[in-house]
Parts: sequence; C-alpha cells; structure tokens
Amino acid sequence: MSTMMAARLVKAGEPLRLEELPVPEPAADEILVKVAACGLCGTDLHLAVAGDIPVERTPITLGHEGAGIVAGAGRDVKGLREGDRVALFPAAYCGACRHCLQGRHSLCDRSKVYGMARDGALAEYVTAPERTAIRLPEAVPFEIGAIVTDGVATPFHALRSRGRLRAGETVAVFGCGGLGTHAVMLARLMGAARIAAVDVDEKALARARALGADLVVDMRQGDPAKAIRAAFGRGADLALEFVGLPETVEAAIRALDKAGRAVICGVGMARPALPPLAAFVGREQSVLGSFGMDRADIEDLLALVAAGRLDLSASVSARYPLAEANAALGHLASKRDGVVRVVVTPGGT
Amino acid sequence: MSTMMAARLVKAGEPLRLEELPVPEPAADEILVKVAACGLCGTDLHLAVAGDIPVERTPITLGHEGAGIVAGAGRDVKGLREGDRVALFPAAYCGACRHCLQGRHSLCDRSKVYGMARDGALAEYVTAPERTAIRLPEAVPFEIGAIVTDGVATPFHALRSRGRLRAGETVAVFGCGGLGTHAVMLARLMGAARIAAVDVDEKALARARALGADLVVDMRQGDPAKAIRAAFGRGADLALEFVGLPETVEAAIRALDKAGRAVICGVGMARPALPPLAAFVGREQSVLGSFGMDRADIEDLLALVAAGRLDLSASVSARYPLAEANAALGHLASKRDGVVRVVVTPGGT
Amino acid sequence: MSTMMAARLVKAGEPLRLEELPVPEPAADEILVKVAACGLCGTDLHLAVAGDIPVERTPITLGHEGAGIVAGAGRDVKGLREGDRVALFPAAYCGACRHCLQGRHSLCDRSKVYGMARDGALAEYVTAPERTAIRLPEAVPFEIGAIVTDGVATPFHALRSRGRLRAGETVAVFGCGGLGTHAVMLARLMGAARIAAVDVDEKALARARALGADLVVDMRQGDPAKAIRAAFGRGADLALEFVGLPETVEAAIRALDKAGRAVICGVGMARPALPPLAAFVGREQSVLGSFGMDRADIEDLLALVAAGRLDLSASVSARYPLAEANAALGHLASKRDGVVRVVVTPGGT
Amino acid sequence: MSTMMAARLVKAGEPLRLEELPVPEPAADEILVKVAACGLCGTDLHLAVAGDIPVERTPITLGHEGAGIVAGAGRDVKGLREGDRVALFPAAYCGACRHCLQGRHSLCDRSKVYGMARDGALAEYVTAPERTAIRLPEAVPFEIGAIVTDGVATPFHALRSRGRLRAGETVAVFGCGGLGTHAVMLARLMGAARIAAVDVDEKALARARALGADLVVDMRQGDPAKAIRAAFGRGADLALEFVGLPETVEAAIRALDKAGRAVICGVGMARPALPPLAAFVGREQSVLGSFGMDRADIEDLLALVAAGRLDLSASVSARYPLAEANAALGHLASKRDGVVRVVVTPGGT
Repeated sequence: MSTMMAARLVKAGEPLRLEELPVPEPAADEILVKVAACGLCGTDLHLAVAGDIPVERTPITLGHEGAGIVAGAGRDVKGLREGDRVALFPAAYCGACRHCLQGRHSLCDRSKVYGMARDGALAEYVTAPERTAIRLPEAVPFEIGAIVTDGVATPFHALRSRGRLRAGETVAVFGCGGLGTHAVMLARLMGAARIAAVDVDEKALARARALGADLVVDMRQGDPAKAIRAAFGRGADLALEFVGLPETVEAAIRALDKAGRAVICGVGMARPALPPLAAFVGREQSVLGSFGMDRADIEDLLALVAAGRLDLSASVSARYPLAEANAALGHLASKRDGVVRVVVTPGGT
Repeated sequence: MSTMMAARLVKAGEPLRLEELPVPEPAADEILVKVAACGLCGTDLHLAVAGDIPVERTPITLGHEGAGIVAGAGRDVKGLREGDRVALFPAAYCGACRHCLQGRHSLCDRSKVYGMARDGALAEYVTAPERTAIRLPEAVPFEIGAIVTDGVATPFHALRSRGRLRAGETVAVFGCGGLGTHAVMLARLMGAARIAAVDVDEKALARARALGADLVVDMRQGDPAKAIRAAFGRGADLALEFVGLPETVEAAIRALDKAGRAVICGVGMARPALPPLAAFVGREQSVLGSFGMDRADIEDLLALVAAGRLDLSASVSARYPLAEANAALGHLASKRDGVVRVVVTPGGT
Repeated sequence: MSTMMAARLVKAGEPLRLEELPVPEPAADEILVKVAACGLCGTDLHLAVAGDIPVERTPITLGHEGAGIVAGAGRDVKGLREGDRVALFPAAYCGACRHCLQGRHSLCDRSKVYGMARDGALAEYVTAPERTAIRLPEAVPFEIGAIVTDGVATPFHALRSRGRLRAGETVAVFGCGGLGTHAVMLARLMGAARIAAVDVDEKALARARALGADLVVDMRQGDPAKAIRAAFGRGADLALEFVGLPETVEAAIRALDKAGRAVICGVGMARPALPPLAAFVGREQSVLGSFGMDRADIEDLLALVAAGRLDLSASVSARYPLAEANAALGHLASKRDGVVRVVVTPGGT
Repeated sequence: MSTMMAARLVKAGEPLRLEELPVPEPAADEILVKVAACGLCGTDLHLAVAGDIPVERTPITLGHEGAGIVAGAGRDVKGLREGDRVALFPAAYCGACRHCLQGRHSLCDRSKVYGMARDGALAEYVTAPERTAIRLPEAVPFEIGAIVTDGVATPFHALRSRGRLRAGETVAVFGCGGLGTHAVMLARLMGAARIAAVDVDEKALARARALGADLVVDMRQGDPAKAIRAAFGRGADLALEFVGLPETVEAAIRALDKAGRAVICGVGMARPALPPLAAFVGREQSVLGSFGMDRADIEDLLALVAAGRLDLSASVSARYPLAEANAALGHLASKRDGVVRVVVTPGGT
C-alpha cells in the first residue's frame, strides 16, 4: 500500500501535523487526484488558528482550493480518466438535493466541505466525487485553477449571481483581502462604471487602486458612505461585504443608493442591524447573503482565464511545498507584502 | 369662485377639521378631479392620530387613495378630458427623475405624497398631475379603484416586483390588516402553493384563512417559523412583512427556507437585526425593502379586477360621507369587525 | 427469472406488440419501478402511428409519462427504497452535463427519453436512474402524477420559465389539446388577466372556455390576431404555441403586443418565418423555444396539486389496462369526447 | 427673427438641401439646443439615399444623433437652463404611454424620431422636449455624446437589456459597421469570454479584431456557425445581428449553442425563417428583437465614458462642417477607411 504526506489539523491553534497516511481509495463515484496546487484562504485561518469556525472531526486534512491530475477512479466514473487536469469544487455537493438540482451547489443540503467535513487537498492526494471535479483548460496553470475555485469564484458569484451587476453601475467593495481584491478586478471586468474599495490596510487599498478602484477609503478615517457619495455624487448601486463585522455590514448598506443592493459574503456570529425601516423600505434597498459559488461560476471563470480576459498571474503571492504548510499559513496570517493568495504545491513548483 | 369641503389635518391627535375651501385650480399639467371615493389606510392613522409619521405642512387635506371623475384640466393636459374616470397614484411623482424614468415611481426623487406633502383626496375635489392619473375601467367601481391604488397595489408590488413570487412557492404573510389580507388573496391569485398568515388578532387570522391561507399562526402562541416548518415541511420561499416591528421583521426572516426572500413593507424607525451572518449568508437569504408601487402595478391590478380575476368586493368594510371623515378614521382605528378598508365617499355612495 | 408484460413499438404504423419480457434489472444507480400509471401523449402518436418522429431503436417499450412504486434498487441507490411512490422525469438525464448542472434537465446533452431512447413505462416495470425519479406526495394519485410529468409540466415550463408570465398579463394559447388545455388552466392559476384560446376544434374550444379562457377563437374563421386585438384592445403579452405548424407559429407571433413573447413548444420540421424585421425588431418581440421541463417544474406542480391549488381530476379522459394499450392510443388519436389525457394502468385501476 | 442653416431632406436620392430657416421656437415643455455635433448613421443613408425607409414628411431636417448646448427654453422647462450641455435621445418620446412609463422609451407609442418625424439635429439649432434631453458630463466631448445616443447605445441595449449578456459567455456579432464595432467593444467591456465578429469586409473584420474579437469570420468564406464552433468548441451563447438580411439573421440563429439567444437589431422588410422547429424548440433558443435603446442605456454609457472605462476616441472617423453635410453622407456611404461614425459639427470643430 502506497502512502502520502498530508497536512492535518489536529487542534485549532496548534501547527498542522505533517503526517504520512495511506493514499486514499476513491469510492465508486469518486476520482483520486494527485494534488498539484492547493490555495489557502482566510477560512483556513479560522479553522486552524482561531478555531472560531468548527470542523466536523479531527484530525482532518485541510485544504478546499485544490487542483491536480486524475490519478485513479472508482468503477462508476465515466467522464474523467487518468491524466486529466481538474480543479475541485470546494465542497463535495450531493448533486441530488433540491438546490444542487437547480445549480446552486453551495446550498447543497448534504454538502461536505473539504478540510472541514472531509479530508482536503493539503496533501499529495485527495479523493473527490467525479461530479464535483471541473476540467481545467490547458491554458490555466494548476495554481490559478486552485485559487479560482474559491478565492475568485466567491466574489464572482456575489457580483454576477447574487448582485446582478449591470454594466454602468457603481460598486463599493468592503474588505480588500483576497476576495475583495478579486471583487475589484471582476467588477472592472464586468463593466462597473465606478468602483470604491474600503479597508483599514493601506497596502490593501493601494493594491485595490492599482487594480482598478477609482476611490479607496480607509474606514478608520470616517464613514465610507460619505466618501463614496462625495466622490461619485450618489451612493453605490451594489456594495459587497467580505469582512463579516457589524460595522462593515452596516456601512455597506449605508453606502447604498436608492434601489441599491448589498451583497454580504462575510460570515461569523455577528448580527448587524438593518437601517431604520423607514429608510430601508422607502429606498427599496436589498441585503443579500452570498455563499460560495455555483459550479457554473467556476467554469465560466476558467473560460475567462483561458481566453486571456482575466489575468490572475499576480494573485498568487507565494508558493510553499507541502512540508512547509505551516509556514504558508503563517505567511497568509501575517498579511505581509499585501498577500492575496498563498498556494501550497505538494507536487513541487 | 366655487368652494368645496375638505377634511384637513391640523394637528396629529386632534380630529380632522371639516373646512370650506376654494375648489383648487389645476396647474398647466394638472387635472381637477371630483372625488368619488377616497380610501383610508393605516398610514392615515399614523399621520392623523399617532403623529409618528410627519407631514410636510399643516393644515393639509388628508387622503392618498383617491378616485373620481375629471372635472377640469390645465392648458397642457392632452390625454384626459372632463368626465373621464380616473384613479390617482398615491403620490405626485415627477416623471423625470432617474427612478421615474425606469418605471419605479415610488422611488421618485421629487415625490409629493397626497395628504403628506400636497393636499389629498379627502375632499370634494383634488388636483393631480395628469401623468399620475390612471384611467379607471368602466367595470371597476370608484371605491375599488381607490383602494387598489395603495391597499392592493402595495402587496402586489411586494409579491410581484420585489419578491418575484413564482407559482408553486410557499409564502408567509406577517401582519393581516388591509395590506396583509390583500397579500393573501394575491399570493393565491399568483399561484402560491402554500400560504401561511401570521397576526395577533383572531378575526384577522380567520379572515386570512377564509381568503386562502392554508395555515394561520397567532404570533402570541410562539415562533411562527416553527409552526410554518412544522406545517409545510420547510421554511417559506417568500415572507412578506407589513408591521414594521423588529420582532415581526426578524420572525419573517427566521421563517425563510434556504434561498428565501423576506420582503419588508412595514415602516417606522425600528432597526431589526439580521440573523447571525453565518446563517444568513450560508443560506443565501435576501431581505428586500418594498415601498408602495410602480404605476404598472396599479394598471395591471385594474385589468385583473376588470377581467373578474380579482374580487375585491369584500374589501370595503364601510363607507362614510365626507362629513363623517373622523368617524371613518375611528372605525379604521377600532379594527372592529375585521375591517379591511374604510372608504370615504365625498360625492355620496 | 420473473417476467412482465410490455407494450412494444416495433414499427410505426403497426399496432404496439404486447410482449412478455424479463423484468429489467436496475443498474447500480437505478431503481426498478412497478408502473401504476403511464400517460399517453401526442408524441406517442408521432412515434407509434405517424412515424414522423424517429425512435433510436426498435423494438422499444413506449411510454414517457410514468408513475409507480419502487420495487427494487441498484447498489448505489441511497435516497429511495422499496414502496416509495415516485413519478419519473420523461427522460433519463445525465445529471452531469452543463445543462443538468444548471437545472435545465430537458437540455441534457446525454438525455435518453423513455420510449424513444430507452424502454419506457408502458409496461409492468420500468428502470430509471434514481436521480430522475421524483417523490410523489401521498395526496397525488398515480395517474395524476404520471400526466403531470409531461402533459402539465410542459406548459408550466413554457409559462413560468420561458415565458415568465407576470400576473396581470394577457395570454394567448394556440392549440388546445392536452398541453394547451393545461396551459389555459395554468395561466389562470398564475394570475393572467385575460386568456385567449385558439384551435380548430369546437370541443377543444368549449373546454378551454370552461376552464377559464375569456375568448375562444376558431382559427378557421380568420386571423386570431385580429380577434384577440378586437376583444382585448391590444395584442397578447405572451402567446404559447403547441401545434408546430408554420401558420400557427406565425399567427402566434402576429398576435403579440409590443414587447410580447411567443413561446413555441410545437415541434416538427417546419420553418416558420419571422414577421418582417422592421415590425419584429421595432416592437422588441421575442420568439422563445420551450422544450419539455426542468425537474423543478414537476416538483412545484406536484406541490400545487397536493395543496389543492391545481385540480387535475378532469384531465384523465380515460383509463385502459396495459393489455389494451392499442385501444388507448386509438382513443387518443380519435380526439373523441374532447380527450385531454389517456392513461394506461398496468397495475389495474 | 434670427435664422439658421439646416440640412434638409427633400427627396431620397437627391442631395440634402442646405437651407436658411428661422431658428425654431421651443414649445412650453421644450428646449432649444445649439447643435455642437450630430452623428450620421446607416439609417440616414436609408432615409436620404436609398429611400427604403420612409420619412413622415418632406422637407425635413435630418439628424437623430445630436448633442449641444441649451440656448433657450419654453415656459414649463424646469430642470435645464441656458448653457447646459446635453445629448438628445434619438426620438421625442412622449413620457406618458405604457412603454415610456416602464422605461422602454424606444417603444413609445407616440415616438417622433428626429430626422424622420420631426426636424433633426443636422442644423445649427434643434428643439427637443426637455424630458428627452440628457445631461452630458463635462468629461464627454459633444461628438462622443452625440454618437453615444444611438451608435453606441443601440448595441449596448442589445447586449445588456435584451441579450442579458453574462460575464463569461461567448458572443458572436454579425455585421461590423458602426453598431457592430461598438458591440465588440461593449461585449469586451462587459466580460464576454470569447467574441466572434462576422462581416464581408476585410477592413471591418481587421478593426473588430483590433478591438477585441478573438475570431473574425468572412461570411463569404462559408457558414460562420461552423467557424465559431470550430474555434470555440461550441456555439455562441449570444449572437447579435446588425444587418437585417435573411441570411445573416439565419446564420446568427444557426451559430447559437443550446439555450442561446439571437438579438436582432437589423431592420427591413425581410422575413427570415426560424430553424426547423424540432431544433429551435429542442435547444430552447431565443430570437429577440432589439430596437434602439432606453434612456437609461444612454445615461449609463455616458457614465462609463466619463469614468474612462469606455474609450470611444477612435469611433469618430471624420468631422465635417454643416455646409458639407452631403460630403459627410458620402463619406459614410463609401465605407472608406473603415469608417465607424461620421460627425457633422454645425458649430465648427
């Protein structure tokens, strides 16, 4: 029996444990993927460091932004074969519940998120239901394919499916880490007329400006809603929130124009307040939760990258071998050098 | 100069003053309407009794649910002539701002609501910009035309434009006064599969059941969200809120299924809290303010009434002559006999 | 090995052959269904009588409107068990292609329609991929469940998903056989203000009127577009076409108001002409193909039937035992007595 | 009484007549505009040269792409004053009909197109209802404002409102004159993944490639549908047609993928045929007429230009003084040098 290395979360707050495990056997409807790249994301810090998002069991192999090469397949696998390049949807959705059947895969009633509810891609190998694997076009490197699955697809879903951005609208992005940075790029790609970026970190704001934000607002300096109205002459048609704090959610709603929509991606246990109802109702504003992505979001993003329309080459801030998974997490946590996405490359870079 | 009687709000908490005034002169783009019926609505109680919604000036003639006959016209009026039957949009929208130009008339930047910002229809005559008058089909009585403009159009707008009800969905209505009662009827008309009605008044709930609610929930008996899930097997796809209290707004959101939408019509200064973000975001729920109606909502409702598809004959609970306007308000305030809508008929019934 | 009876299409134009066959074995992801009811539809006449729609192989067991009881299951079946009541989607969709993944199951790239590409439900038993089976609520009889899957779901899909009917709109239905008759019922259920029904058969038109059509037009008497405009004052917002002839498709488009949509369900090799482009473009009209249904359409219809909102009890015109499958087809072909749907009941009525 | 020069269409096929006329008086609700720029478009060639689109009366001043400075106002004008920079909607819409009230201004029931039904902007002065004037941001030159109103807004409307382009989709543009060239630019701006451009003119195709088309197809070389499928691996999600010939419309529909939409802008008396219904219906394709634009399309485009998101500086191929209006038309007709838009500048360049 062959073995592999995996980075295992044993207890939040402790380093991941690099462990030798048997290479997993794919079930009948699963593929075995030799991992080429696995992105790390803010959620991983919640799971592994802060411990404020719980995992279903420990130890568990971390990693929900995986891409690699098919290295084996269960007996019912029909569409993929060894050697195929794939990226993995961040969760093993069931494909059969009401939400999966309508293409809203992040709402799956039986979803098993990698690194939270089943072993993830921070390992040399990972298994995945065939239906949740997405072919990676030749033109898209593994590391880009990996981060597209969540770090780019989450803001794309927020902008396109939930926020229904129309070309010519004004957009405000609250929180310019990995998700927010890609939100600025994507709002530009989709034809937003004006883009405001809000954060409390100067490097993040500088990066947002470089990527297309017309206005950057340091939230420590006052209410972003005022700055946005002053600069653009009116509120935002669409505000995206990636932080999950009451003050950022409430500021995002406050920044809206009449008929504006605030799309909330930030999670946590906070319970932000709506504006006074007379204002919220009288302006016909909307507050919309947006969770992860549909599979179609990833597929369409990969098409955009493959076609050269979306350049993500600057999004991978650093690469680490699997043996240095803890250093990779540390790099992400440090936010140093305006990090967007840190990628672990179990197969070498 | 001819004169007319009008019911004037002088000070909230005091009776309306029945006053003799000159018949108003229509401006160049306005019509003069001889009022045949003017509905009273909960907003009028806020304005005239509680005083918790302010008017722009006093004294002011109350009444924003008017219908009648064209009795005069300014020099630029082209489409209407004396004798035409019309209902009035509840506010004099400008027709020229960004929102009017997209058909979202309740969001008009220069809106003047009758009875709040300009003299209303609780009088023998009222003037209105021609563009805000809507032809009343012969088959629709004045009193029905009057209440359609707000009491029926507001829930229609909430269901159709903001809530985008799809046939086969499950609907929960919070607050079964005039708006909520019509919401139950309209949800049924539009093909909702299951309808729950929530209130704290037994008569209102009994009426809701008679009009098509499959489930009625007395909110004093416990969380409606549980009762709805118990009865329907899952949460509501669409919840409508007509009360404006934090507890009803929060209960409406809590009653939602994954991907559900809560449409809030209730106003006031309350600031309800969103659910914990992890739940709200993870379920991709939506909270949508809905304010009044578009003009198209009224036109389409009148077509439904004229075609015999929507029977509002039971919606007018009582009729009062103009001289008894205060008694009419009192009747509405009493909520006695399960009142839906009280109508004042300045021209006699 | 146990055997069963099946009605087999050997050659178009010849009677179906009643044949004794082995009860089929479900594959790993399939269920075996003991058929309780199988609806016949116009397509079956094309396949079995006219031969103008080809089947993939012969002999083949006919029947794509099946419902029954789970009688067996492959090793990978997880959600259903023996005794469960189910209706079958009319085609075995793959669940994995781009269209299935977005919930548009009738567009499946690897679809196998029952009775055309795999053995259908005109037999005592039929196998089906578990994913394509839909739980039948207790309140819905098998024969109603059977006809919902296609005869009702096809017009529902045309009205709701493709036509996006809004309450208050005007609808015209071209062709009042089984699909068109249900279209009239459903347009009424969804809040259409005015409904016109067009056919060349008096009985069909009388039935349409009884079910809610405000206007019935015998197309042999002149252009329906004129009759519709005369009766309703303007063209239709939404026209549905279920015939597939150039003249009915062109009449449906001609019947449209500005901004109107014509949804075409009728199939065949005809190539109808668009109106002169100046008219079609200048009026911003739409012509929309609508094919079958999404799975969600069937599920939502079953919820409507179970809730008592949609009464289909008059839709089953006649019932035949399996041994009389040819008589059942003959009944359908005869159109006698204003037939809507003929159902075969292999398990006895 | 002051006078002005105007370029008048007397008879199709004859040169425009440069004529001295009284400066027109604005009506009560109108403004007088000193024209700074008036774009010429293919429609003008139909009107003035070919005569295959009729005008309502002759002589008439040509020109429906006007921009300039407010130089006078009727007594009821409230929002604009002398000196304001404006662009004019290409038609004087009424603002009061059902379509205007929903923001679909090109469908206005009482529309008066400039240069066809009322005197246009190919003159030193033009009058226009105040409601149809759009403020021109300081950052947008008159000549750009002029061509935005039709030459850019028409493809924007086709892409955004009628075609509902989603980022990541594949687009095919049939006809790469002024409208099609801007369609390629706009499809890119809105995040199309792949863009194909089809024409019969090499220069037009070269320009389309330079502006972002991934594939250019000379329609004289064979069926574009094949070339598109060969290059992109599948059909187009969205095809735009700007020619109005049966063969281009039919090719556009043929180029569609399953669920694809063909938006037709090309006008004329041609009656293209739909594909065989079995294919059109079975693929759930759509054919959508798109006529002109909504006012919001122009406003949003001006915001995009003002924000620097849309660079139209290469779109004005040549400028002519009013006295050379016939030379300007000739230049446009010649298609020489890959002309996009020719602009007449009555006030000097």
